[in-house]
Amino acid sequence: MALEIPEVVIDRLPIYVRALTVLERQGRDVVNSQELGGKLGVTPAQIRKDLSYFGRFGKQGRGYNVKRLLEELHQILGITREWSMVLVGVGQLGRAILGYGGFAPQGFRIVGAFDVDSAAVGERVDGLEVKSIDVLPEEMRQLRAQLGIVAVPAASAQQVIDMLVESGVKAILNYAPIAAHVPPDVRIKDIDPVLALQSMTFYIKESGAAP
Amino acid sequence: MALEIPEVVIDRLPIYVRALTVLERQGRDVVNSQELGGKLGVTPAQIRKDLSYFGRFGKQGRGYNVKRLLEELHQILGITREWSMVLVGVGQLGRAILGYGGFAPQGFRIVGAFDVDSAAVGERVDGLEVKSIDVLPEEMRQLRAQLGIVAVPAASAQQVIDMLVESGVKAILNYAPIAAHVPPDVRIKDIDPVLALQSMTFYIKESGAAP
Repeated sequence: MALEIPEVVIDRLPIYVRALTVLERQGRDVVNSQELGGKLGVTPAQIRKDLSYFGRFGKQGRGYNVKRLLEELHQILGITREWSMVLVGVGQLGRAILGYGGFAPQGFRIVGAFDVDSAAVGERVDGLEVKSIDVLPEEMRQLRAQLGIVAVPAASAQQVIDMLVESGVKAILNYAPIAAHVPPDVRIKDIDPVLALQSMTFYIKESGAAP
Repeated sequence: MALEIPEVVIDRLPIYVRALTVLERQGRDVVNSQELGGKLGVTPAQIRKDLSYFGRFGKQGRGYNVKRLLEELHQILGITREWSMVLVGVGQLGRAILGYGGFAPQGFRIVGAFDVDSAAVGERVDGLEVKSIDVLPEEMRQLRAQLGIVAVPAASAQQVIDMLVESGVKAILNYAPIAAHVPPDVRIKDIDPVLALQSMTFYIKESGAAP
C-alpha cells in the first residue's frame, strides 16, 4: 500500500508534523483542516486527502486531536526512533551542518565526518574526529548509519554518493549542485538553494522594477 | 493564466532546467520526455503535462529541442536576468552561503550582508562588508534587492523576515527552522534539511536492522 502513496504527499507530512508540534507546545488539543491549512498555505481538502491515505483521523466537523495525529505521523514517517548519519565534506558548509542545532532535537545524529582534504583529517569539529574518506567503507561497518549527508564540491559528489551507497547508506541528503544517480532502493533529496530561488522568481518576475 | 498553474509544477521547472543544462553542455540537440523523465525520476507523462501549461514544445515523437526548451524555461522562470539578494545572519551558515559558488553562475548575486552581532559588523566576508541589521531598511533603499536569505537562529527569524518584507523583499529563502509568516504577495521557501530527512525515513524505516 505504501508504494501507491504519491511522493508529494510524503513530502508534505513533515510540514504537518512541524506545524502540529508548534500547536502541541502551545497546549492545543484539537485543530481542524481549515486552520492547519491556513498556517501552511495548503487547502483543507488537500490536508484531508493527504491524511486519508493512512486511515481515518478525526471526526467529521470535530477536527483532529493534535497529540494523536502527531504520534501517528511520527509512526508513519519512521521518526519515533533515532537515526544515525554520516557527513562527507568538512569544508565551510560541512562545518555549518555539523554545528546545526536542528538535527538532534528531531532524532537525527551525525556519528561520523569524512573529508578528502588531509589537512582536515584528524581535526575535531563539534566533538567528532574528521576521518579520511579512504576509511569510509570500514568505518561504516561499525557506524552502521543509514543516512548520509554530502557536502562536497559538485565535481566529486557522484563519487562520494557511490561510496556511501556501497557502504550501505539508504538515504542521502545532497548539498552538491548535481543531479546525482542512485540505485532504485536508495532515496536522495537535494538541498539546492538555486532551485528554490528559481521557483520563486517565477512569481515575482513581473512585480516592480528590476533593481 | 499564470495563477492557475499548480505550485508543484513551478517547483519542477528548475529541475528540468538543471537537467537540460547538463544535456546542452554535452552537445545534445534533442531529448524526449522518456529520457528526461528517466534522469529525474519523473514520468514522461508528467513532464509533458507540466510543459503543456506553457504552450507547445516539441513535436509528437520528435522530442524537445534542448536549446529552445531551455530558453523558454529561462523566460518562464524569469531567470534570463540577474537577481540581487541580501543575506541576514553571518554566522557559520551565513558564511557558507556567502562562500557558496552555486549562486553567481545562475544569476543570483548577494549584494548585502547583515548581522545583529556587533562583533561581525564591519568585517569583510567574501568581498562584502557586514552591516548592522539596524541599517537594513536604509541600505535596502540603495541595494533594491528583491530576494532575501535568512540564516539567523529560529528565535529571531520571524522578526528578520518582517524587516525584509517591510524593506521591499518579494521572495525569501529561509534557512531558519520555523514556519514563517509572510504577506500573500511575498514568496517564501524553507531550506530545512530535517523536512527532507523525514520524508526519506518514510521509505527506509522498514529496510534493514536499526543501527
